[in-house]
Amino acid sequence: MRTSKSDSDKKIIISVIGGAHCSDEEAALAESVGKELAKRGVILVCGGLGGVMEAACRGATIEAGLTIGILPSDDSTTCNPYVQIPIATGVGYARNIAVVKSAQAVIAIDGDYGTLSEIAYALKSGIPVIGLNTWALARNGQQENSIIKAKDAIDAVGKAISLAGGLKVP
Amino acid sequence: MRTSKSDSDKKIIISVIGGAHCSDEEAALAESVGKELAKRGVILVCGGLGGVMEAACRGATIEAGLTIGILPSDDSTTCNPYVQIPIATGVGYARNIAVVKSAQAVIAIDGDYGTLSEIAYALKSGIPVIGLNTWALARNGQQENSIIKAKDAIDAVGKAISLAGGLKVP
Amino acid sequence: MRTSKSDSDKKIIISVIGGAHCSDEEAALAESVGKELAKRGVILVCGGLGGVMEAACRGATIEAGLTIGILPSDDSTTCNPYVQIPIATGVGYARNIAVVKSAQAVIAIDGDYGTLSEIAYALKSGIPVIGLNTWALARNGQQENSIIKAKDAIDAVGKAISLAGGLKVP
Amino acid sequence: MRTSKSDSDKKIIISVIGGAHCSDEEAALAESVGKELAKRGVILVCGGLGGVMEAACRGATIEAGLTIGILPSDDSTTCNPYVQIPIATGVGYARNIAVVKSAQAVIAIDGDYGTLSEIAYALKSGIPVIGLNTWALARNGQQENSIIKAKDAIDAVGKAISLAGGLKVP
Repeated sequence: MRTSKSDSDKKIIISVIGGAHCSDEEAALAESVGKELAKRGVILVCGGLGGVMEAACRGATIEAGLTIGILPSDDSTTCNPYVQIPIATGVGYARNIAVVKSAQAVIAIDGDYGTLSEIAYALKSGIPVIGLNTWALARNGQQENSIIKAKDAIDAVGKAISLAGGLKVP
Repeated sequence: MRTSKSDSDKKIIISVIGGAHCSDEEAALAESVGKELAKRGVILVCGGLGGVMEAACRGATIEAGLTIGILPSDDSTTCNPYVQIPIATGVGYARNIAVVKSAQAVIAIDGDYGTLSEIAYALKSGIPVIGLNTWALARNGQQENSIIKAKDAIDAVGKAISLAGGLKVP
Repeated sequence: MRTSKSDSDKKIIISVIGGAHCSDEEAALAESVGKELAKRGVILVCGGLGGVMEAACRGATIEAGLTIGILPSDDSTTCNPYVQIPIATGVGYARNIAVVKSAQAVIAIDGDYGTLSEIAYALKSGIPVIGLNTWALARNGQQENSIIKAKDAIDAVGKAISLAGGLKVP
Repeated sequence: MRTSKSDSDKKIIISVIGGAHCSDEEAALAESVGKELAKRGVILVCGGLGGVMEAACRGATIEAGLTIGILPSDDSTTCNPYVQIPIATGVGYARNIAVVKSAQAVIAIDGDYGTLSEIAYALKSGIPVIGLNTWALARNGQQENSIIKAKDAIDAVGKAISLAGGLKVP
């Protein structure tokens, strides 16, 4: 259906998810992820708030990348200062669905139960999830290996871009 | 604020969550949970579809309990036949939030990633989650024990009712 | 699909929509609508808050009817005191969709822009809207007559029940 | 809070709303609106589908503007071919809230009940709505003049930009 653009015009969109509060170490990791995404020409989507989200947006902004923040509130001004395009959904934490479904791959950094809900929504849809110090899952006593472990920011971004390619890009 | 009713009028509402497809064994377990909830006068909330949700509603209906199905679609007729009050949300899997937030406790039976998203939303809000053969969580290499294990349907319902008491009931 | 129940078991569900703040006159009208719905065995759905919603629930409760409040917040205790079953959606004013889609007909009493959004969602889905002193619509300079005018509470409930019959009831 | 950017960095975001199906005349009008928004450096937000939304995005793309489509489905590939950044919300027509709340002003072109729900959500929040051949409202027999009439595309965009200035931009 998307015939007006050549393949080369298509931008990859990758989400970075994680807690609205995070340690300095996690913030540094998220900033590195944001920088690397921007260097590689990827559009960064996130939940638009603080912590991991803000650090990732800051990193992307430093490298002149584009950042989109999909907010729970209906007020665009609630975003962190490094969000260039705020989407004010007004649907609360139902926006977690949009945060992952708008991306071709997801990078999870640490995170709390909100992040876990996003991981669940992504895996439900077959969107690849790359994890940095984040949740691990087991079901009925069996380990699940659906979250792909990365060893650092560059590894996470490389894996995310590689796996994003497998999905249809609009 | 709720002054028109005495405490004794207040009904406990408990959600049963789990896969829309399930094994016969899981269905039997869910039906037992539904029966036990109804016998104890609890209103059953669920996601309104098949599998674990349908089996739990069937159990509750057999024991003349009240069942509410909070549906993803905007069409009330998409509910399973044992839902007495269908809520047609029209917000897709964002209805998972309503399924857990409308309850004072949640019983998770088996389940896939959708169930995992519901567990995450419940834990994020401090709503107790009682698990029967369901997900287990670890974070940064540490086991999480936030899902309370139950050994059978009667144990699960007993724990859920007991923990529901700790929450404010409207 | 709904084979477990005979047709005679099926309950009609009707929504009452209107402002969270209203005049005494509107409250009296909403209370009369709630009473009449309960007398006729209809389940009342509303948005769960104050004003018209609270008055309608109060009327239904006086006549021992069942009331369901579909709330914007994720906290069941935010409902008015006459809501018997609160549904805490957590999706903000996106719950307006659920308020109308869960019913077979809608009665609109006065109301502000939130009510207008509900009327729009109902009409979009072909759910009949009966109006008491509420919005009137025109499109491209032409009057729209899609909102059915009622002259009083009894007339509104009669029309709503009659029109609800045309829809499939789950 | 947004301290990392000077005021001159801030982009205005304006939504164009209207039917997913429209006449050739309406499509031409929507395309002109899209062109004019892009020429004036405004980011265009819309619901991402066909009809007025597609025509507006096409116009903006011709003038090298940025287009964002906030989709009802959870599949980014359902957008029209001129959407550069698809947001796949997965919350159905609850995305109508995001379409208007993410903008500082809204331009409504013709439109059906979905558009009416968007107008209602915008007015509820005090977001200015500029109308081109669209809905007119009356309440309790009194005309409402809350939708600001424009005489053509250039007039609509001029009024929208002027009124957008009155809102806080993130």
